[in-house]
Amino acid sequence: EEVSHLLNLKAQLGTVEDGSGPHKLILKTPKGTRDYGPSQMAIRADVFNKIISVFKRHGAETIDTPIFELKEVLTGKYGEDSKLIYDLADQGGEILSLRYDLTVPFARYLAMNKISNIKRYHMAKVYRRDNPAMMRGRYREFYQCDFDIAGQYDPMIPDVECVRVVSEILTSLQLGDFLIKVNHRQLLDGLFEACGVPPDKFRTICSSVDKLDKSPWEEVHNEMVNEKGLSPAVADCIGKYVRLSGKTELVEQLLQDEMLVGQCKSARDGLEALRLFLKYCTLYGLQDQVSFDLSLARGLDYYTGVIYEAVLLSDTKTEHGESSGVGSIAGGGRYDNLVGMFDPKHKNVPCVGVSIGVERVFSVLEARLASNKTKVRTTEVEVFVASAQKNLLEDRMKLCKELWDSNIKAEHSYKRNPKLLAQLQYCEEMGIPLAAILGESELARGIVKLRHVVTRHEIEVQRENVAQAVRDLLTKASGNS
Amino acid sequence: EEVSHLLNLKAQLGTVEDGSGPHKLILKTPKGTRDYGPSQMAIRADVFNKIISVFKRHGAETIDTPIFELKEVLTGKYGEDSKLIYDLADQGGEILSLRYDLTVPFARYLAMNKISNIKRYHMAKVYRRDNPAMMRGRYREFYQCDFDIAGQYDPMIPDVECVRVVSEILTSLQLGDFLIKVNHRQLLDGLFEACGVPPDKFRTICSSVDKLDKSPWEEVHNEMVNEKGLSPAVADCIGKYVRLSGKTELVEQLLQDEMLVGQCKSARDGLEALRLFLKYCTLYGLQDQVSFDLSLARGLDYYTGVIYEAVLLSDTKTEHGESSGVGSIAGGGRYDNLVGMFDPKHKNVPCVGVSIGVERVFSVLEARLASNKTKVRTTEVEVFVASAQKNLLEDRMKLCKELWDSNIKAEHSYKRNPKLLAQLQYCEEMGIPLAAILGESELARGIVKLRHVVTRHEIEVQRENVAQAVRDLLTKASGNS
Repeated sequence: EEVSHLLNLKAQLGTVEDGSGPHKLILKTPKGTRDYGPSQMAIRADVFNKIISVFKRHGAETIDTPIFELKEVLTGKYGEDSKLIYDLADQGGEILSLRYDLTVPFARYLAMNKISNIKRYHMAKVYRRDNPAMMRGRYREFYQCDFDIAGQYDPMIPDVECVRVVSEILTSLQLGDFLIKVNHRQLLDGLFEACGVPPDKFRTICSSVDKLDKSPWEEVHNEMVNEKGLSPAVADCIGKYVRLSGKTELVEQLLQDEMLVGQCKSARDGLEALRLFLKYCTLYGLQDQVSFDLSLARGLDYYTGVIYEAVLLSDTKTEHGESSGVGSIAGGGRYDNLVGMFDPKHKNVPCVGVSIGVERVFSVLEARLASNKTKVRTTEVEVFVASAQKNLLEDRMKLCKELWDSNIKAEHSYKRNPKLLAQLQYCEEMGIPLAAILGESELARGIVKLRHVVTRHEIEVQRENVAQAVRDLLTKASGNS
Repeated sequence: EEVSHLLNLKAQLGTVEDGSGPHKLILKTPKGTRDYGPSQMAIRADVFNKIISVFKRHGAETIDTPIFELKEVLTGKYGEDSKLIYDLADQGGEILSLRYDLTVPFARYLAMNKISNIKRYHMAKVYRRDNPAMMRGRYREFYQCDFDIAGQYDPMIPDVECVRVVSEILTSLQLGDFLIKVNHRQLLDGLFEACGVPPDKFRTICSSVDKLDKSPWEEVHNEMVNEKGLSPAVADCIGKYVRLSGKTELVEQLLQDEMLVGQCKSARDGLEALRLFLKYCTLYGLQDQVSFDLSLARGLDYYTGVIYEAVLLSDTKTEHGESSGVGSIAGGGRYDNLVGMFDPKHKNVPCVGVSIGVERVFSVLEARLASNKTKVRTTEVEVFVASAQKNLLEDRMKLCKELWDSNIKAEHSYKRNPKLLAQLQYCEEMGIPLAAILGESELARGIVKLRHVVTRHEIEVQRENVAQAVRDLLTKASGNS
């Protein structure tokens, strides 16, 4: 209690010391977070809709889980990265942490509800106390977008559908050319075994291999030898393989490689799984997009089977002019043992899934819009009800009511007597296609002017037909576009 | 450090003491929270879409803010309820709290970004460490759904649009008959002044009045006299007024009431504002739904002008068979001084808004679906690709590819050789309208059977025309429904 008294005093001192009195407030969002304004939200909504359409095309359901979990649910799932988990204060109850990803809550959900079959997507925010690099689009609060298929099925059928989903999403988002690299954890383990890596070093050597997308082989070799204690010969053996990539013919070639598959069931199983996977890829029309790549390792420990990662091949600039490089935009794989960690009897539910890097998608699209100087519409207003003279507020209100009743998106000024020019400028700024202009003399004649905002072309319509006329003009416009 | 050592020991002891070893895990979501499964999500998505359509019809933009704020942003905004705020642990950085509502973050957003005009909606989760009453649908993590208009405009024009938005939403959700009660904070303050309540008791007496929707006048009178120290005569004076409700004629009648408006500018201003408000309500077609009700007080301190609350008139049972009563389903009002609390120069941005009680909406709809025994579809699959014999996996995959390429929502079994009966049962369970059934002899003839799942009616179509035939059948079906 004395400590809290001292802390209170210190806090009071703090507010005095900064010379601004007790009401000084720092106006900011927490470190590593940001508000999303209307145009950012419009871009996000468009991306989410496109992605969700693909998920729905494949018959996926969606679920949601709380933003926080019992801390013990997350404990031991993220290795070293556990230090990045946000904890909630102990306010006299359960000990809670903010979710770090969507996969662990999904596994907890399956185990808790004894669900053994589901195909679900989940788009939601996750939290990591990482060093934010906001210029490069790395935040402490960010969206994840996951698609997973859980259930005991026949080999590679759900796995290849996940890759098909990635391909449809990237195509639909029009992000440019992409390549989906695939590999298999059993093949990697078999390769390490065949080259003579001690089993307790499989995972850490896997992490080294994972760096090959960013670092040259020499650096990775150095790390394996100098930091992780492999003999140079073992590292060389790994190096001979992990620089290979190709298609089915590479799988067939490696299946003939006695050194790799002679002694090692795991390598053979991995290769045979990949053979089936690549055959199914062809049936799903993915043969040109998928490449078998032995350097693909994926960071996470929990993968047990096929792994894949999609990279964009075109080089796009980020919002801040940096090159975004040729980077990963989606990735995933099979993880058959995670749900069992939550089940009292360790009953497993085999899972395979993919996570779409939506934050990276947003960066790429925002950069593109900025360089095109494209303005994003943030509302969907179809017609603005304007007045050409004073004292027409009530007429505007009556017309708006009719438009809303007819399910037309409409607004008018919240001022009694707005200037016509200001109203028309607002329409141009907001990209509103039509303006219904009320004037005294026109109203006396039972007429309203409908103005096409961009062309400034005006037509006169009967006051009682405005809603229908607006509807007709909008239909015609959408037919032309 | 010694303390943390002791705590560690205690934690270890704890796991030993419960007799289940260190891997015992309690499988639950945090207290007062829950997972949303596929059918709950489907109901929510439908409600959200209907509500968002109304917001968009009125030209609203949307924003999002982080799930947590600097603790000081929330401090002093919620009075006694501040104790219900979730704090994050101090992990060596800023002191953070989970958002408690969407209004305070909105005000912070406006002040921080110097935005003086916006019409925005925000649907997101908020957090309150309240005593959960999950049977009555009260959770610690729950959705709020707010619509607000910020800006310096002419009186009552945005205010009445908020009420129009409520009316459109409740109509669109088909929740049954409803009534929107309106009152004005200045009228309440003027009434308290006229009756002789000391100014420092205005807010607490306002809270007492707010209880009139649940308690009889006698109880509220008692509270005013015995707990809050009003003289019985003052309480009687209040009681004479707060039991009144009506339409414009009640406003006119009170404007003639010398005792109320003779000395008291505030009461007169409030009544004149309400007169204008009710006139605009009529222009927006709301005259039958809106009732001027002097007992409406609203709990929150920050309202400064018109206040309103929508109540459902029909009595609906909740999911758990309890009567949900005649309850508030939406509420809001004008708050002109909140943004100024965040501005360094206390510059205000006048705001008016409404919050839709979406959790209550979910309860009512879930209760209705449960009592109708209606099954909610959780996917939108249009056609299931089934096989009548073994060894047709590759044919199923090829057909699915074609359907997906044609933007048709399709799935097939993840088993190599599923039983036909199991596949058709799955279609019935999931409400999938069509099944494309592949059979060896049909494929040999270049034919696929298309089955209408409910009627079991089958037609034969050319293998190369399946996508088009599915599209035609779906169009015909939606035309008939």
